[in-house]
Amino acid sequence: MESLARRSGVTARVRVVEHVDGQVRRREDRVAAEEPLEVRLGWPGARAERVAVTMRTPGHDFELAAGLLHAEGLLEPGLVRGVAYCTDTELTPEQEFNVVTVDLGGPPPRAPAVRQGGVTGAASACGVCGTQSIDDVLALRDVRRPSARSVVSPDVIRALPELLREHQRVFATTGGIHAAGLFDVAGAPLVVREDIGRHNAVDKVVGARLLAGSPTGVPILAVSGRIGFEIVQKAAAAGIGLVAAIGAPSSLAVRLAEETDVCLVGFLAPTRFVAYAAADRIGVG
Amino acid sequence: MESLARRSGVTARVRVVEHVDGQVRRREDRVAAEEPLEVRLGWPGARAERVAVTMRTPGHDFELAAGLLHAEGLLEPGLVRGVAYCTDTELTPEQEFNVVTVDLGGPPPRAPAVRQGGVTGAASACGVCGTQSIDDVLALRDVRRPSARSVVSPDVIRALPELLREHQRVFATTGGIHAAGLFDVAGAPLVVREDIGRHNAVDKVVGARLLAGSPTGVPILAVSGRIGFEIVQKAAAAGIGLVAAIGAPSSLAVRLAEETDVCLVGFLAPTRFVAYAAADRIGVG
Repeated sequence: MESLARRSGVTARVRVVEHVDGQVRRREDRVAAEEPLEVRLGWPGARAERVAVTMRTPGHDFELAAGLLHAEGLLEPGLVRGVAYCTDTELTPEQEFNVVTVDLGGPPPRAPAVRQGGVTGAASACGVCGTQSIDDVLALRDVRRPSARSVVSPDVIRALPELLREHQRVFATTGGIHAAGLFDVAGAPLVVREDIGRHNAVDKVVGARLLAGSPTGVPILAVSGRIGFEIVQKAAAAGIGLVAAIGAPSSLAVRLAEETDVCLVGFLAPTRFVAYAAADRIGVG
Repeated sequence: MESLARRSGVTARVRVVEHVDGQVRRREDRVAAEEPLEVRLGWPGARAERVAVTMRTPGHDFELAAGLLHAEGLLEPGLVRGVAYCTDTELTPEQEFNVVTVDLGGPPPRAPAVRQGGVTGAASACGVCGTQSIDDVLALRDVRRPSARSVVSPDVIRALPELLREHQRVFATTGGIHAAGLFDVAGAPLVVREDIGRHNAVDKVVGARLLAGSPTGVPILAVSGRIGFEIVQKAAAAGIGLVAAIGAPSSLAVRLAEETDVCLVGFLAPTRFVAYAAADRIGVG
């Protein structure tokens, strides 16, 4: 198999052994590339430090970094001064394109802190018993951003799976990658990105808008997988009005969508879909 | 929608609006439950502290906590003295079943440290440029555990999807949940667990073996989704010989499987599957 990261394609070639109906065949295959990306955040007077590591499919890394920081409340659009791969001379070739630094013109909106899934020596004594960390995870109060709450036609919603699939270049090759797309109220695609991680794909489309200087609070986000809590959290943080997914939502995704007034659609198919929250913002068909 | 966590079912009831062929129908639906679980680790002389927070489907929480800590290298089977929900009197009802403490008889095999996806003020100056954190993520050296490397028959592999599906109780109700199952070399199920997170489902089956005092290095792990790096990492840490998935593997999953000598099978179906690593451990027939 190819080395980890040589200017990192979105797919990698592998030798496989296929078993079909009792027959064995050796051939070449392609798999979706997965590599760690370290995101660092710096601003004048503060040395750039790591704030996140995510396993992602290489490509659109600057958008991913910007979108991820935005979803975490660490970045406002006007604040970005630059995004770059780390140029440290001690980098090995394997690391060269796996570290991205985002430079802000001033301090971030909030101080970088323990993230979801994160640890460290960070003490939370049994006296507070989960309050802080679970509140961190939910963070319901921080995620709402103003946005236009458009009424979307059911015809537009039904057309989303095909539109998303049309843009899934890597999925066609590997069968193993997710997609996220932003669409306007008439169903026109604004930006579609792929990633092995569902959350990364969402960060990439939001980050693409941010770095282009465009508003992130667009009418529709369509995603290829299921909708967990974090997908809705990212949509709410971007000010997106409606999230539609090919898969099923979770209980916490439904609850957060209700609390943040995000219209939530699951089991999206050409002839059918199910609305789980803010269903009144779907028009009459 | 129901409140977040009242002794937490694995599914939650929601009111939905279904659009089918232009018709609109209001009905009740069930979604997979998703809630945060905080895992704490303590040992004599050390106050129990948070080492991880994961979004999971409630149920088999002790197994999840044990499996997660084991995969992180923080727990050896003989060390576990107790696993319990946090009994702090300041708990709200919402938190009561979302904090699990694992008590060890002595210090863990390694000191709890920054986990994947984690942050904090934890400085990694640009001088080290990703080395530490990306090495943390890969952690290739730490994940290999001794295990029997059985030769598995293709007939056994082909039977796995149906066996896994038979045990997917929650999937049948919600369509939105993953499964992981451990099987012996003849394809007999040892333990099957479901969770909204693929990684959690794997932690639960490994944790079930651990808490039962049984070896974790079984011949086969079957999973319902795709195989990213972390799935192989957890399998290697448990000493499992073969990982088979309904979905596709990633590049890093293939690479890690090669390095840890885990047989890796993707696109698992009744008549077909593809072997990506250690294919010589699949028998003839």
